[in-house]
Formats: sequence, C-alpha cells, structure tokens
Amino acid sequence: MSIELYWGSGSTPAWRVLLALAVKNLPYTSHLLSFSAGDTRKPEFRALNPRGKVPTLKDGDLVINESLAILAYLDSAYPDVPLFGRTPAETGAVWRYVMEFESHGNPTISAVARPLLFGTLAADEQKVREGVSALHAELDTLAERVASGWMVGGAISAADIVWYCGLQQLVRAATRPAAEGLDLGVWPLATRWPAVVRWANAIEALPGYDATVPPHWREGAAPSPERTV
Amino acid sequence: MSIELYWGSGSTPAWRVLLALAVKNLPYTSHLLSFSAGDTRKPEFRALNPRGKVPTLKDGDLVINESLAILAYLDSAYPDVPLFGRTPAETGAVWRYVMEFESHGNPTISAVARPLLFGTLAADEQKVREGVSALHAELDTLAERVASGWMVGGAISAADIVWYCGLQQLVRAATRPAAEGLDLGVWPLATRWPAVVRWANAIEALPGYDATVPPHWREGAAPSPERTV
Repeated sequence: MSIELYWGSGSTPAWRVLLALAVKNLPYTSHLLSFSAGDTRKPEFRALNPRGKVPTLKDGDLVINESLAILAYLDSAYPDVPLFGRTPAETGAVWRYVMEFESHGNPTISAVARPLLFGTLAADEQKVREGVSALHAELDTLAERVASGWMVGGAISAADIVWYCGLQQLVRAATRPAAEGLDLGVWPLATRWPAVVRWANAIEALPGYDATVPPHWREGAAPSPERTV
Repeated sequence: MSIELYWGSGSTPAWRVLLALAVKNLPYTSHLLSFSAGDTRKPEFRALNPRGKVPTLKDGDLVINESLAILAYLDSAYPDVPLFGRTPAETGAVWRYVMEFESHGNPTISAVARPLLFGTLAADEQKVREGVSALHAELDTLAERVASGWMVGGAISAADIVWYCGLQQLVRAATRPAAEGLDLGVWPLATRWPAVVRWANAIEALPGYDATVPPHWREGAAPSPERTV
C-alpha cells in the first residue's frame, strides 16, 4: 500500500501521526495543507474528509480521519513497532492514558494554553489563573507515569506520543512573552518536573523526530537549555 | 480472570461498557455506584480511579479507567465477538466513527441535550436553538452510515455502541416536556431518520440488552410506539 498524509503545521493531532509514522519507520507522501490559504476547505480535501479536519490519512483507497483512529489503523495494518502494547494489559494501559489525555489532560492544558496561543488572554485571564492548579496536578501525574521511562511496558507507545504533543502545546504557550506575568509555574519544566523533561528528550532523540516538528514552530525557535522548547 | 465493573446509572460511558460485555457475553460482577450518595468520591473507589469517574473495570488485579480504553482492553483480552473490526480497514473505520463521535457527535448532542437534562435551559436556550442544525447534520450522517445495517463490516462494533449510547442521551432530552416548545425537529426520530430507528431497534433486540438500560431511566419509561424512548 502507499500511505499519504494530509496535515497542517502546528496541529497537535497531526503531529501525533507524524510521530507514529516515524516510530514505525513507514514511508509516506506528505501533503502539507495551509490553514491560512483555506486548503482544508477546498473541495478536493472535503472529498477525503467532509469535516475538513487534519490529519487525514490515505492508504491505497482507504481514507481514515481522526488522529487516534489513524494511530489504531496504522498499528493494525503495520504492527511492527507496536503503538498500543504487546499484551492485553499493556493495550488497556496505553488506551487508558490516551483517553485520560482526551478527557482530562487536553481540556486542562487547553484552558491555560489556548488563550495565550490564540490571543484571547484579555478576556480569559481569570480562567487561565483558575486553571493553573489543575494543570500542575496533570503534570504531577505525567511525571509519576514517566518516572522510570516510557509510560507503558518499557517501549514508546501512543500514550507517550499523545501526551508529548499536548505538552508541546503547553510549552509553546508558557514561553510566550504574555505568559510572563501570569505565574503559571510551568516554565522551565525541569524545576518541578525533571522526569518529564528527560522523557521528552528521549522522544526528541528518536530517529526521524526532527522532521515531525511543526515547520512554523521550528522557524521561530530560539536556543534554549531545554530542548523541549 | 474475574471481571468487576464499577458504573453509575445514566452514565453513557458506563452504558458503552455494559453493552460491550453483553455483546461479548462476558460474565462480570456489577458494582452500581450512587452519584447522589457520593460513592465515586469515597476513598475505596478513589483507590481504583483517582479521578473518581465511572466506568472503571477491574479484571483480576488490573484496573482500567475510561470507557473507550475498557472497550479496547476487552477486545484485546477477549477477542471473541470483535468490537474493533476483523481487518485493518475495519479497525480504522470503527475507530474513525468512534472518534468522530467524541470530536463532533458528542459536543453537538451535548449542546442540545445537556441544558434539557440538567435544568439549565433558561440560561442556554439560545445555544440550544443555534445547535439544532448541526445536530440534524450529525443525525443525517448517522443515518447514512446505518442505512444498510451496522456501521462497519456487517457486524456490531464499538462504533455502533458509542453512537447508540449518545443517541439515547439525545432521545431522553428531546422527549422531556421542556423540549416541546423548542422545535428541535428530532422527535419522533422515525419522521426524518427511519434508518436510525431500525438500527437502534436492532441493538435493543440483542440478547442481554435489557439489563444494560440505566435503571433509573427504565423506572420512568412511558410506553411508546418507538422502542428507542
């Protein structure tokens, strides 16, 4: 089969798929869509995904939307380097952590990160401040889970990928100048969550990682003592 | 192994797991928790699930939280009567529809249903009215997908289970007296979406279905020409 990926720069769901393809070392044809040029609203893309969302993956004639569905499909079609565990217990634990990100991690991170990333801080500053303690609790839980390395079973899994991409959105927000006066207590991560930084660095050392970083994030990157910037 | 399920009446995520156990014909010990009695806040339950959410499943010493993680675990540990397809293409399609429910179906249904179910209609009536056309579009998509029976591969799957439980929440809201003046255009479903009613009735005819219906919904049920009430 021949894999084609439709994605957008800065979409954390798309980043999950790019990382999964890197971990599995699967070749693919890249279609980088431009949100600002309206590529996701064009009829040729809507024919693949009527909801107009990235990532969308094509494998031969098969079209799969939704990042987690794409990860599950890739693991079923290309099981080498499994992303969802090697035993039922591991599979359950990987999906548990993945879905805890969706149900708890993502809303908690978004409440703090989105107003900083999308310029609505003036309206949402109170909500951001109220969200900080829940955010610290999520980072504490993440730190416990990566204290001895990968989250499940001694190997990278979809759980690591999903939490890593979410963490990067938080880091990008927390290092914005507008975050300075907010006392988020998040940056630098190593102060309170050194295990999280070690774990993130292990992901960033994976072969093929560099090519997965959102292109427009890379262009604006400043040097930093922590590579997770 | 010995399966134990901690659940609450009226929780649609818990209902997913009850239906999955019925489809797989797996015996289990039922622990019905009372939200009003604070069972999910008690230390013995928090020891199993620190987030205090149902459903939580125990299988021997293994604990799995999050309904979709439980479904994925059950399918891995007890693959007979598969819930996530029999081929990679089916697995991808099942997860796609499951995640489209999470990303699109659930928010769309909740925007209309929750104000009716949780008594916030006075504050949220405008949002409810604005959400109706998106809700109809989701029901149109669902009707297309079940036009010839099950959503994927000629057999019931997690996709059917997840959409069915979401639909039931909508039906419960749309049949409340407070919904009458809202022109939701949803009830009775058969007027516009007869395929959805046929598909729901097929789920309701499954062996073991009756025992999965939320107990406090059953008590209040009125006779109706459509069994999906």
